[in-house]
Amino acid sequence: MGQGFDAHQIEKGKPCHIACLEFPGDDGCEGHSDGDVVAHAIVDALLAAAGLGDLGSFCGVGRKEYEGASGLRLVGECVALLADHGFAVGNVSVQLIANTPKMGPRRDQAEKIIGRALNAPVNIAATTTDGMGFTGEGTGRAAIATALVYRGN
Amino acid sequence: MGQGFDAHQIEKGKPCHIACLEFPGDDGCEGHSDGDVVAHAIVDALLAAAGLGDLGSFCGVGRKEYEGASGLRLVGECVALLADHGFAVGNVSVQLIANTPKMGPRRDQAEKIIGRALNAPVNIAATTTDGMGFTGEGTGRAAIATALVYRGN
Amino acid sequence: MGQGFDAHQIEKGKPCHIACLEFPGDDGCEGHSDGDVVAHAIVDALLAAAGLGDLGSFCGVGRKEYEGASGLRLVGECVALLADHGFAVGNVSVQLIANTPKMGPRRDQAEKIIGRALNAPVNIAATTTDGMGFTGEGTGRAAIATALVYRGN
Repeated sequence: MGQGFDAHQIEKGKPCHIACLEFPGDDGCEGHSDGDVVAHAIVDALLAAAGLGDLGSFCGVGRKEYEGASGLRLVGECVALLADHGFAVGNVSVQLIANTPKMGPRRDQAEKIIGRALNAPVNIAATTTDGMGFTGEGTGRAAIATALVYRGN
Repeated sequence: MGQGFDAHQIEKGKPCHIACLEFPGDDGCEGHSDGDVVAHAIVDALLAAAGLGDLGSFCGVGRKEYEGASGLRLVGECVALLADHGFAVGNVSVQLIANTPKMGPRRDQAEKIIGRALNAPVNIAATTTDGMGFTGEGTGRAAIATALVYRGN
Repeated sequence: MGQGFDAHQIEKGKPCHIACLEFPGDDGCEGHSDGDVVAHAIVDALLAAAGLGDLGSFCGVGRKEYEGASGLRLVGECVALLADHGFAVGNVSVQLIANTPKMGPRRDQAEKIIGRALNAPVNIAATTTDGMGFTGEGTGRAAIATALVYRGN
């Protein structure tokens, strides 16, 4: 099993990609890739569970080919890397910690898309920090994930 | 497996319910329910592990019947929901991140009460953020939990 | 399974011990022991997974014999305590949340040292909070860990 945490600043005017969905009314997160904290936390948890490092070693700032990379692409490539090492995904649990976007109405959609990429069940939750800290003040977003993997094919 | 995180502001004069106990000398947390961040993190972790959504979808702000609901009631109803879906709880690990209340002297009591509701072992830990951030400045409390569930019954 | 979170302030001029390594160019963390947030999060996760309390009950501020104790010593003694209770470690996943030190170049070294103490695989990841909050402003460091244990010997 592994766990992953990621946080990004919110950047005014940038398209908002969270949990492999686009949210038209919200500002996105800055970052080397598309700033999808939910996808990044998932990738970190998967890599950790399989003992394969972290997001930085996988697709970090040095790697030009990942500039603007979508969260879905990162999740997909990560699952492929795990498969190369003999791991399949058991399940993933991830929680967005942010004021926006509203995940509830689109949770099913996000779970379907990401679950397909994982070939495993995923639960996407959302919470706030009740107005406190950088996630509560709306400066940034964070996400935290755990993943279970197993040797399989 | 699933994970859950919750945070609430501290509200002067409100009774302090944490980990399904009342702490007479401390201020409680504001919130739709009784503000028990430990119980809420547990519920979020359980729902996530079973793929059943999150605290908001389970007993969120829109639901009048949960106004002031106790943490123990939420944990109990959550365990019943899991059982309806064929899941039993393996174990739960939860950590209070706050300056107050002092969990140490009452950990055993809290673990007994919550363990009974879960019908599974629970470990309740506590830490601070060393004076930093909203939990360190005493503005709020947070809790983080992981849960293991299995198909059973 | 269990989870652990720890946070410490950075103390100018104190030697920097993180993930059971010394980082000569960086300031360390204040604290009762050597301030190794990564080791502390691991110990918290292990104790929680085995239902044996938390860092405070294990080696808290009241215990003089742990003043300045190294992270490696705490991990080692924790693994011994788990063994006394019939538990062995399955795996550990831990993430440093901090601007410094740079974990990437020394991850393998840290994983070897800690993995030996755990007698189990460990994945050490690192991330930042993108300039936000106490970890982003460089006031402190945090770490978050999950651990899987099993009855064995």
